[in-house]
Amino acid sequence: MDHKTDILIIGGGPSGTVCALTAKKYYPGKEILIIKNVANNVIPCGIPYMFSSLDKPEKNKFDDSALRNAGIEMLVGEAKEIDRENKKVITTDGGIYLYEKLVIATGSNPIIPDIKGINKKGIYPIHKNLDYLKSLVDEIKESKNVAIIGGGFIGVEFADEISKFKDKKVYLIELLPRLLTNSFDEEFCTLAEEKLKSQTVEVLTNKGVVEILGSSKVDGIKFSDGSEIAADAVILGIGSIPDTELALKSGLSLGKGNGIWVDEYMRTADQDVFAIGDCAGKREFFTRKDSPTMLASIATSEARIAGANLYSLKVVRENKGVIAAYSTCVSDLVLASAGLTEKTAREEGFEIIIGKAKAVDKHPGALPDASPVMVKLIFSKDSEVLMGGQIAGGFSCAELINIIVMGIESRILRNEMETFQFATHPYLTPSPVTYHLINAAMNAKKQNGHH
Amino acid sequence: MDHKTDILIIGGGPSGTVCALTAKKYYPGKEILIIKNVANNVIPCGIPYMFSSLDKPEKNKFDDSALRNAGIEMLVGEAKEIDRENKKVITTDGGIYLYEKLVIATGSNPIIPDIKGINKKGIYPIHKNLDYLKSLVDEIKESKNVAIIGGGFIGVEFADEISKFKDKKVYLIELLPRLLTNSFDEEFCTLAEEKLKSQTVEVLTNKGVVEILGSSKVDGIKFSDGSEIAADAVILGIGSIPDTELALKSGLSLGKGNGIWVDEYMRTADQDVFAIGDCAGKREFFTRKDSPTMLASIATSEARIAGANLYSLKVVRENKGVIAAYSTCVSDLVLASAGLTEKTAREEGFEIIIGKAKAVDKHPGALPDASPVMVKLIFSKDSEVLMGGQIAGGFSCAELINIIVMGIESRILRNEMETFQFATHPYLTPSPVTYHLINAAMNAKKQNGHH
Repeated sequence: MDHKTDILIIGGGPSGTVCALTAKKYYPGKEILIIKNVANNVIPCGIPYMFSSLDKPEKNKFDDSALRNAGIEMLVGEAKEIDRENKKVITTDGGIYLYEKLVIATGSNPIIPDIKGINKKGIYPIHKNLDYLKSLVDEIKESKNVAIIGGGFIGVEFADEISKFKDKKVYLIELLPRLLTNSFDEEFCTLAEEKLKSQTVEVLTNKGVVEILGSSKVDGIKFSDGSEIAADAVILGIGSIPDTELALKSGLSLGKGNGIWVDEYMRTADQDVFAIGDCAGKREFFTRKDSPTMLASIATSEARIAGANLYSLKVVRENKGVIAAYSTCVSDLVLASAGLTEKTAREEGFEIIIGKAKAVDKHPGALPDASPVMVKLIFSKDSEVLMGGQIAGGFSCAELINIIVMGIESRILRNEMETFQFATHPYLTPSPVTYHLINAAMNAKKQNGHH
Repeated sequence: MDHKTDILIIGGGPSGTVCALTAKKYYPGKEILIIKNVANNVIPCGIPYMFSSLDKPEKNKFDDSALRNAGIEMLVGEAKEIDRENKKVITTDGGIYLYEKLVIATGSNPIIPDIKGINKKGIYPIHKNLDYLKSLVDEIKESKNVAIIGGGFIGVEFADEISKFKDKKVYLIELLPRLLTNSFDEEFCTLAEEKLKSQTVEVLTNKGVVEILGSSKVDGIKFSDGSEIAADAVILGIGSIPDTELALKSGLSLGKGNGIWVDEYMRTADQDVFAIGDCAGKREFFTRKDSPTMLASIATSEARIAGANLYSLKVVRENKGVIAAYSTCVSDLVLASAGLTEKTAREEGFEIIIGKAKAVDKHPGALPDASPVMVKLIFSKDSEVLMGGQIAGGFSCAELINIIVMGIESRILRNEMETFQFATHPYLTPSPVTYHLINAAMNAKKQNGHH
């Protein structure tokens, strides 16, 4: 039997969910159906915290009550084919779903590197599936030596969280000379490394994995320099690739990277088919090159663009490009980054000026619980447009980075930032005299021979 | 003997200090002298916290090391006359100081209301002078019943701080029906009131003071409704007026309000004389009316504008008008506001739409120490320009309000805010699905009959 809906969304993660909610707001008369392939999905960013911070993994279950309250239908199933000519989707159990508008939000899959022994038991890529993750948490709790391969955000957060178990040895393994190098310049990467080491995480940089050791189950890792470590559990955190299989089978094509080609309104080459989130192609805000950045925040932004544009285009509501905006924490150290780093900006050929500042996040600094904050801002040299920022410090950095994100999105100039009228308060921020964002903008002033 | 300098600044508060530092940056060859009338000045916003949070009042002393390191001269003295024709300032001790450019940063004085008995002992206006405040702290510590007149930020912060002494009864007295009404709409004012009451502060709203009781020293307060309370110390927190005496005597005139008239570059009618900070006239960003708002953050913003424009105008560096941007806390409740409130916007004739949202500042909300955050955004109805915002919640609100401030200063549209790519993290922010600023912008969407 054929089912008919107005808006069909394949994928129930953050992008599918937000697209459904947005579409309901802009087109309240339309029927919306989400097909998702996992009964119990999770909050993706919360996965590292299922080990210790949350008292049980179920606390990270994705709450779909907003969808149910909005009258959005959901079903668990696996889409196996998109028939774009007849505007229908066929599921593995033979269901046929007719649509007016289709949204592909199939997400991404963890990269499994081609390493000898990678298929042994005890090796865990991160799948966004509650039941899988529950058993992963149980396995890790039983392990003595846990190795995490990949020193990006996921790896750093797993290492921080698993190091809270005092009976385990935790290794964090990275091929490059530093952790977090995609998002931070060296002086910030070092802070994360030092903090993890102080929590007894063994940080192994410049280490290429050549073999997973053990018989049927992992018992160690061998590196390209010949050294070995013991490991009874290995977590893979080396990135993800867009899940584009269904789209490609339906005749849609990819952009310059690995994601489905979309225009500024998130439409594929088929004007009735949209793609959003990790599976969709992205362009970086400044370089205009393909961006491999996958973040739930970008996915939901794309979902809001698509949801509004499904039946009629809203010109303001267009995708201006990806601003990689990350925040993370290692114990009580918050690290956050937005836009381009100094290293990436220079490699891409941008002529830039840099401003740095430090301030204590309360004033006077003698107030209890004050933390130092370090800020680095990157501006285009001639136009003075804000291009990126990095911060490290206490909890105030959580939303401080989003001031920088808003500045980048609004194409703020250095000169404008210097005279902004930020709210300040003794218990809440640095003083208006020492406010870090302003002083970093001021210190980037090129006339003074900084560059 | 005549002294000669290039840039002469009268006033050593936040605006005088920042103006000197900015001028040194833009005009490194110029000599700069600050004349200040208090040897030991304090961080103005930190004054309430000299009672209990700081272990001694000296911890709130203003640190002038940045000035000294920059080679800026300072002297303690009282300017008594500006001779603009001969470009010199004369001090009460007979000193004569010649200038090329003069900056008036004389600040403001606390309002002393014309109430019967106001000159009794035990009544304390807030002067920004360390020695005065040290003795005030000692007096308050000896008091049993402390009454604070004025339910604005200063009054609320003093009440919060002094209520930490368990041996005192604290009264907070406000003429209007609510606390903090200049900066918040009713639903936020109520939160502050409830929190103070839970800390045993007696909040007395709708109370006009008609007399301070007692013989030579205060022992009580009488209200217009005939009621009385016992009080052995009274703090006045009912606002300040610009200190313009020196400027007026020199023939400069005021703007439409009580501050010295200045143009967008902070110049007075005399092109070699600038005025900045509390003593300078201000226009509100949206209404373009005179603004009585006095904040250290605004003062320093004006100082940065003046400091750069002293010898040559920088067009970008102009004063776009005051955005009142406040944050405060009552115990662990943070309240913050930026731009116009709903009430003020309507009174001023703006046609507006409102969006509200709530979110927990971590995700999943089951993470330890998660706090709910309440957001209200105000947009112009037709143009959708962001005009104001109010927030209440935990410590994340500290910098969250500054995202709103940057949005207002950049004239962000509701539609743009809805698709911003904010950085999110489980421990640091709401989830990208529930992110409060985005959802508040979304909820303001006028097509859906919200207004």
